[in-house]
Amino acid sequence: MDARTGLPVVGMVGAGQLARMTHQAAIALGQSLRILADSPDDGAALVAADVVVGDYRNLHDLRAFALGCDVVTWDHEHVPNEHIAALAAAGVATHPSANALHFAQDKGAMRARLAQLGIDSPRWIDLTASGDPAAALRTFGAEVGWPLVLKATRGGYDGRGVWVVESEDEAAPVFASGARLLAEEKVAIKRELAADVARSPYGQAAAWPVVETVQRDGINVEVIAPAPDLDPDLADRAQEFALRVAKDLAVTGVLAVELFETEDGRLLVNELAMRPHNSAHWTIEGSRTSQFEQHLRAVLDYPLGVTTMTAPVVVMANLLGGPEDVIPKAIDERMHHCMARWPDVKIHFYGKALRPGRKVGHVTALGDDLQDVRSRAVAAADYLMNGERA
Amino acid sequence: MDARTGLPVVGMVGAGQLARMTHQAAIALGQSLRILADSPDDGAALVAADVVVGDYRNLHDLRAFALGCDVVTWDHEHVPNEHIAALAAAGVATHPSANALHFAQDKGAMRARLAQLGIDSPRWIDLTASGDPAAALRTFGAEVGWPLVLKATRGGYDGRGVWVVESEDEAAPVFASGARLLAEEKVAIKRELAADVARSPYGQAAAWPVVETVQRDGINVEVIAPAPDLDPDLADRAQEFALRVAKDLAVTGVLAVELFETEDGRLLVNELAMRPHNSAHWTIEGSRTSQFEQHLRAVLDYPLGVTTMTAPVVVMANLLGGPEDVIPKAIDERMHHCMARWPDVKIHFYGKALRPGRKVGHVTALGDDLQDVRSRAVAAADYLMNGERA
Repeated sequence: MDARTGLPVVGMVGAGQLARMTHQAAIALGQSLRILADSPDDGAALVAADVVVGDYRNLHDLRAFALGCDVVTWDHEHVPNEHIAALAAAGVATHPSANALHFAQDKGAMRARLAQLGIDSPRWIDLTASGDPAAALRTFGAEVGWPLVLKATRGGYDGRGVWVVESEDEAAPVFASGARLLAEEKVAIKRELAADVARSPYGQAAAWPVVETVQRDGINVEVIAPAPDLDPDLADRAQEFALRVAKDLAVTGVLAVELFETEDGRLLVNELAMRPHNSAHWTIEGSRTSQFEQHLRAVLDYPLGVTTMTAPVVVMANLLGGPEDVIPKAIDERMHHCMARWPDVKIHFYGKALRPGRKVGHVTALGDDLQDVRSRAVAAADYLMNGERA
Repeated sequence: MDARTGLPVVGMVGAGQLARMTHQAAIALGQSLRILADSPDDGAALVAADVVVGDYRNLHDLRAFALGCDVVTWDHEHVPNEHIAALAAAGVATHPSANALHFAQDKGAMRARLAQLGIDSPRWIDLTASGDPAAALRTFGAEVGWPLVLKATRGGYDGRGVWVVESEDEAAPVFASGARLLAEEKVAIKRELAADVARSPYGQAAAWPVVETVQRDGINVEVIAPAPDLDPDLADRAQEFALRVAKDLAVTGVLAVELFETEDGRLLVNELAMRPHNSAHWTIEGSRTSQFEQHLRAVLDYPLGVTTMTAPVVVMANLLGGPEDVIPKAIDERMHHCMARWPDVKIHFYGKALRPGRKVGHVTALGDDLQDVRSRAVAAADYLMNGERA
């Protein structure tokens, strides 16, 4: 509790764009997010008043950070699970909990648990647990067909820690990395979807409309809300999956469930994230309650906000740094041109220096017509990152 | 320019709720508002990373604060005009400028200038300039009728610095205060309106819909957007007044023009403010571009954002601390109940301790039906400040 305001103090471990945008939401609720940053130059550390620089892998730093926080929550999945459990044992309210986060931190545990819940995933095998990974891969490949997807059970995101291999030979360097690995069938997908929900410790839950997440080279580049032409039964099922996962895994805060929609009309869970997620950045302007406000409400056990959309169509496009030679010397000048050309597109920069491929922000467009809204979002993002085309 | 992000640094003098909400908008634009605060406990200082504690009346403090800012702007009207001029003379980009702010700082200068521009005000007289204020008041009262409104030419807001007097006798203690005074006729008004616009140094301007500002005891308690049942000709005229004032006074940033709509269908300017203003807090959720983002865009000479509304009706209700005996010990608990009862109402707290009558936040409701939207906003605000009624 902040004695000056009588309102709670939420601590977030990690100071990236999720913490940065959560801080914006915290300000409206009369709070100031307390942030554990790796560096004072982290995106959230640049804008928040209550910043502690420390190491999220160090229990001592976590304990010191948690002192005086009403709740501690997470900007990323990399905090050691045993440290989260130790904080909880010491009386810190940790949301989501170590038990819930385990399933977002370990893809093998997640796959096994989803199978128990009767929620479909791509066919998979824990190669490392098999004892002879090469033999297990050979057998699995013979069963489900090549190519296969190898995934590190821990630490991967945005295409990192994921390899598509055509053969045992191609898998060899991945094995050599020493990572604990799963193999998954490479599903013939129509597209990727995300079902984002929030759940409070009290058990209240709320779902946003299911969205389409457009990928390029394994990285999310666009999110379209709601997912265009999605069969209502599939949309219901996706939300039901996400709400069931949230309940059965006792998730608190925002839960993002990334899904494959297959060519043959199935819905398979790809990944889980237990924090605000790129697939719901559109909610800042596009939903009556943004995912960042909702995450705060959920981890504080406040009643959740309504998730109705503010426009029929909302499209978010990520700002990914272009090639070295077009990295703008004067991003400020591009802001001018972008604002002049698209005065209704909302810009979000994360306080990061531009680097090729680095996610430095996003833009959001809203309206009635999918093609119009989508083309504006994509064009604005492309202009900001790549400037004028030849 | 912030070397880490390549984006500009805006400095705002004053650390109240306007700076606090401008900081939220700055974060999205990749910036971090630099704030000159009276105290580290000011509402904006509690949430921003780049806070300097200093005295806005001290030119030395202002100069030190302005170093490294691309633009300096103002959270309030109390910065001495000559200091603003001195900053500009030293090469600081000051928006709005000393010349423009003069008309927001001095009600006599404002009234005289509006008269030159042919924009209607209540009939008025500069009592202090007249040499014999008592005699001037007597003559003016005989001409326009009692009661009259006395206004301090400087420093008044939210009902402070304004007195309604029935007679010369009642004016005596106001004269005794030594304040420089205007007298104005007490107009028979139907209601109060506000026309809020923004203008950039380049000369681009944008107007939000004209709103009704509901007053209680001289303090704004509600804002209804758009002003219900406003004659379209009057609405056009109000916007035209505001755009003309912005242009002719070379205002940069947000300009709020407070207006009286008289019983006989006239439109009279009451006050001007050259900064984000309570009458446009509804724009945070209710307009595609909030006044805080627009103020930043304007003072940076960025192109302005569109001002279209996001819902047919938007109502903002101020959170004014209730009587001493109902000041909640547990505002946090009231937050719970408020969120449960009105899950769609957006809450904004300013980081201030509760005191009777103190403006500590606002709430905003949006929808299609005026009575429904208004009743939700007012009920949520009333509950947060006054709790359950007996």
